[in-house]
Amino acid sequence: APFEVLDHGFLRVVDYMGDDGAVVQAARVSYGRGTKRVSEDAGLIRYLMRHRHSTPFEMCEIKFHVKLPLFVARQWIRHRMANVNEYSARYSILDREFYLPAPGDIAAQSVSNRQGRGNVLPPEAAREVLDILERDAMKCYADYETMLDPEGLGVARELARMNLTLNMYTQWYWKVDLHNLMHFLALRADSHAQYEIRVYAQKMMEILEAWVPLTAAAFKEYRLGARSFSATML
Amino acid sequence: APFEVLDHGFLRVVDYMGDDGAVVQAARVSYGRGTKRVSEDAGLIRYLMRHRHSTPFEMCEIKFHVKLPLFVARQWIRHRMANVNEYSARYSILDREFYLPAPGDIAAQSVSNRQGRGNVLPPEAAREVLDILERDAMKCYADYETMLDPEGLGVARELARMNLTLNMYTQWYWKVDLHNLMHFLALRADSHAQYEIRVYAQKMMEILEAWVPLTAAAFKEYRLGARSFSATML
Amino acid sequence: APFEVLDHGFLRVVDYMGDDGAVVQAARVSYGRGTKRVSEDAGLIRYLMRHRHSTPFEMCEIKFHVKLPLFVARQWIRHRMANVNEYSARYSILDREFYLPAPGDIAAQSVSNRQGRGNVLPPEAAREVLDILERDAMKCYADYETMLDPEGLGVARELARMNLTLNMYTQWYWKVDLHNLMHFLALRADSHAQYEIRVYAQKMMEILEAWVPLTAAAFKEYRLGARSFSATML
Amino acid sequence: APFEVLDHGFLRVVDYMGDDGAVVQAARVSYGRGTKRVSEDAGLIRYLMRHRHSTPFEMCEIKFHVKLPLFVARQWIRHRMANVNEYSARYSILDREFYLPAPGDIAAQSVSNRQGRGNVLPPEAAREVLDILERDAMKCYADYETMLDPEGLGVARELARMNLTLNMYTQWYWKVDLHNLMHFLALRADSHAQYEIRVYAQKMMEILEAWVPLTAAAFKEYRLGARSFSATML
Ligand SMILES: Cc1cc2nc3c(=O)[nH]c(=O)nc-3n(C[C@H](O)[C@H](O)[C@H](O)COP(=O)(O)OP(=O)(O)OC[C@H]3O[C@@H](n4cnc5c(N)ncnc54)[C@H](O)[C@@H]3O)c2cc1C
Ligand SMILES: Cc1cc2nc3c(=O)[nH]c(=O)nc-3n(C[C@H](O)[C@H](O)[C@H](O)COP(=O)(O)OP(=O)(O)OC[C@H]3O[C@@H](n4cnc5c(N)ncnc54)[C@H](O)[C@@H]3O)c2cc1C
Ligand SMILES: Cc1cc2nc3c(=O)[nH]c(=O)nc-3n(C[C@H](O)[C@H](O)[C@H](O)COP(=O)(O)OP(=O)(O)OC[C@H]3O[C@@H](n4cnc5c(N)ncnc54)[C@H](O)[C@@H]3O)c2cc1C
Ligand SMILES: Cc1cc2nc3c(=O)[nH]c(=O)nc-3n(C[C@H](O)[C@H](O)[C@H](O)COP(=O)(O)OP(=O)(O)OC[C@H]3O[C@@H](n4cnc5c(N)ncnc54)[C@H](O)[C@@H]3O)c2cc1C
Repeated sequence: APFEVLDHGFLRVVDYMGDDGAVVQAARVSYGRGTKRVSEDAGLIRYLMRHRHSTPFEMCEIKFHVKLPLFVARQWIRHRMANVNEYSARYSILDREFYLPAPGDIAAQSVSNRQGRGNVLPPEAAREVLDILERDAMKCYADYETMLDPEGLGVARELARMNLTLNMYTQWYWKVDLHNLMHFLALRADSHAQYEIRVYAQKMMEILEAWVPLTAAAFKEYRLGARSFSATML
Repeated sequence: APFEVLDHGFLRVVDYMGDDGAVVQAARVSYGRGTKRVSEDAGLIRYLMRHRHSTPFEMCEIKFHVKLPLFVARQWIRHRMANVNEYSARYSILDREFYLPAPGDIAAQSVSNRQGRGNVLPPEAAREVLDILERDAMKCYADYETMLDPEGLGVARELARMNLTLNMYTQWYWKVDLHNLMHFLALRADSHAQYEIRVYAQKMMEILEAWVPLTAAAFKEYRLGARSFSATML
Repeated sequence: APFEVLDHGFLRVVDYMGDDGAVVQAARVSYGRGTKRVSEDAGLIRYLMRHRHSTPFEMCEIKFHVKLPLFVARQWIRHRMANVNEYSARYSILDREFYLPAPGDIAAQSVSNRQGRGNVLPPEAAREVLDILERDAMKCYADYETMLDPEGLGVARELARMNLTLNMYTQWYWKVDLHNLMHFLALRADSHAQYEIRVYAQKMMEILEAWVPLTAAAFKEYRLGARSFSATML
Repeated sequence: APFEVLDHGFLRVVDYMGDDGAVVQAARVSYGRGTKRVSEDAGLIRYLMRHRHSTPFEMCEIKFHVKLPLFVARQWIRHRMANVNEYSARYSILDREFYLPAPGDIAAQSVSNRQGRGNVLPPEAAREVLDILERDAMKCYADYETMLDPEGLGVARELARMNLTLNMYTQWYWKVDLHNLMHFLALRADSHAQYEIRVYAQKMMEILEAWVPLTAAAFKEYRLGARSFSATML
């Protein structure tokens, strides 16, 4: 069963390959006969994470089926070290499904952080925003259908879709190795990431913990929870 | 001066590194002392292209500044072997500039090709389509401004932008090596590519011809103009 | 059980993810509801291969454990779109195992092809070559051991190993997606590739046929067995 | 003029594109009109480095011509995010040039670090090591020539070269963007890297400082000189 994310989105694990054991197996080939029996795999995984020996983590792979708003997809796709197949709006008609934030997620522009949001809007302001978003998305979608109508204007799908708003949902298969997944999570489960992509990243964090518990623990210890002190600070 | 593309877009060469000579120089290191003086560089470049020895073409690099509609950007960004910095709609307000096709470019859904367009629409139908596109884009943009208004709702930019339509323009710096540029062109200057990305690719084809004439000629001879015959056909 | 390759090498499938069905599944997401029931998957896979729609093939992944001579590893590693963990000669001592060609594989420099081999050497010349190769590899390895000897010189492994010859065997885990595997095979199962890497590629071709038979068939039809005719030839 | 590295190696800057200004230019496109005039570029570059906003650094590119021992090349080539053209030992005959460490660089296996070297060997032990390395390299090379001799055995170059030792020199063109160059330097100018690759990295560090002084300063402040404290340590 897929995990629900946002109002109409989801995240579903389609397949995966390898686990903590596969990371250890690959790391051990580097050490061959010379290896002292590392009494626990956890220790080796922590060592790899601490020293940023990232290639053994590339030995695991995971594939998701994701449904997500277009403006989130535009951020997500910037991660190039992944494999993607997206629903084609040239080939098919997009569904009338668009993201509307929960009222508690509609916030004002942050004043301290030019690239983020600040205080939550008061209920009636949030209501007004939702009305605008819904009305415009509905109107644009209705006109999309009007343009597509084979009995009417019959415009090409690849053209008509440009009338849609950025909160429409799309879908894709997204496959990535464990190292690059963690790189994605370090950037997108972070507080600087936009809330709407962060909720996907947080769900993936939970999946990570179930899938590769030792790696997830080391990741939290040495990456997510770590802090870097600059030369001058030290 | 930038090259104008579509109604408000452009393509500008910011910088480049290397030329036909750099391809030859790199290919020659592979052959070292053993090389027969290849009387013309053109011959070597044709040889590399014919045999798909692509790494010497990676020795040249070019950087563009591009202004393009969002739905075109979504196709373009799928080419992962490039470097990108895009205008941030979390950080800044997008301009009220959106793509409206020339009437002669508004076409019906193709019947033979599910992923393309067919006959051009009659003038009054095209007019109707343009009215819809313009009206919706304007309305959505006006509401974007309403939501942003710091004296009014004051919504965060990262949220308000989801109300924009996919024909809005964005900008980016895009840097790529010559091999991957040709790969991009082979896919996007092709008749299967959507018209709106193809016009950018065609302009880049002209730039290619001016920049690396020997490579461009070989590319047209052995890639763009070539045809592959399958085992059974042969 | 690993497949034996060359005199001491092997190729072993450690794990894989996906199959022909996973390629089809990913391709179908692009077509969504719009898809006519493609009566056979084979047709869709052939279509993707013919039109070089390569991203659906990236949805499958395979991991090998390989033992191979150093000079083969140097060619192999040039394929960057793969994940690798190699035995470390800084960390561990390399085994005394080196590649000696079968007499029938010892050939003269080709006269027509500067980058290949021509006629097989007569038996006694081959014998002489083998004597040289064996003697030098043994001597270099013996001196490697001498330098390493902790009771004697006790040289660091990372230094001593520079005395070894390029026919020594190394090992690695090598993981790759199906698209990039086929790209590797197109270049390395080809007659222009050196025999010693080609035998690995040929074994992988057999694995491909067992793993993804529809994809393997399309690959042979539209890539390996195809021929490209240039613009001028057409 | 190339920089000399090790006994016969070198590092030469062939070409480059962009500088600190190009990093800033690309970062600013992300901020568009919204940017407060950042009074100094140095501040913006430090900000990008501190927050690991790495894509603006991908906007600069540099190309080197490098001569390096084979065992160093084997480590170097593992950095996949670069473009390479190497001298071909299938096509050409390798020169009789091999690396011999300076006596002061010949060290014992480290006892604390399985993957490194410890104390320098006493002079006469170092002498003995050098004698072995030189003798074996010379012998192997002489036999390489014997096998190649077109009047004699006439063995194919691609076969004969397997008799060479790993301290032989090779050459390549190596091109990389500034972000990935710094990633290379972070790993290879580090004390865990083998001395023989570190000396190349150190020379590149100097080049970095001359080429992009602001970036180099920020890199030293926030990457090379920084230390990470784990969640538990904090
Ligand atoms: C006419 C047309 C129709 C299309 N329709 C669809 C569609 O319906 N749905 C859809 O999702 N896409 C569609 N695409 C996009 C297409 O699937 C590719 O994403 C896009 O063309 C980029 O091609 P590429 O992967 O070869 O280029 P790049 O991403 O630049 O890659 C070039 C090469 O580098 C290697 N590579 C780069 N990154 C990786 C990586 N992370 N892992 C492994 N190898 C890598 C591969 O060998 C690849 O071939 C379409 C494209 C075209 C031209
Ligand atoms: C909070 C936040 C704000 C952002 N703001 C902006 C913005 O305003 N404008 C903007 O344009 N982007 C912005 N981004 C996106 C950002 O610039 C990256 O594109 C994105 O985070 C992907 O990161 P990446 O490049 O490390 O990942 P990947 O693309 O997955 O790459 C991982 C690593 O692989 C290597 N790599 C992969 N592909 C290539 C290649 N083709 N060439 C060279 N090396 C390669 C690099 O070493 C890279 O570090 C933002 C991201 C975040 C998290
Ligand atoms: C001190 C030291 C000891 C080492 N010991 C060993 C050893 O014992 N055994 C061993 O095998 N190696 C060893 N290595 C090599 C190491 O594992 C890396 O291969 C090497 O450092 C290159 O690092 P990278 O992968 O980060 O760089 P790049 O290959 O340049 O990659 C940069 C980033 O791009 C992305 N990327 C690039 N290509 C791909 C791809 N195909 N798929 C997915 N993501 C990609 C990743 O995000 C990656 O982090 C050692 C390295 C060092 C510095
Ligand atoms: C018969 C033969 C002879 C050869 N002779 C020589 C020689 O004399 N000298 C020599 O140096 N090499 C030689 N090579 C190696 C060759 O140049 C390639 O390095 C090797 O074949 C790997 O091919 P690739 O780059 O397509 O594969 P990959 O590295 O797997 O790349 C696949 C695709 O991904 C993309 N890609 C991956 N990484 C990057 C990156 N960092 N930047 C940009 N795009 C990237 C590119 O689009 C590329 O086409 C030879 C190869 C063969 C088969």
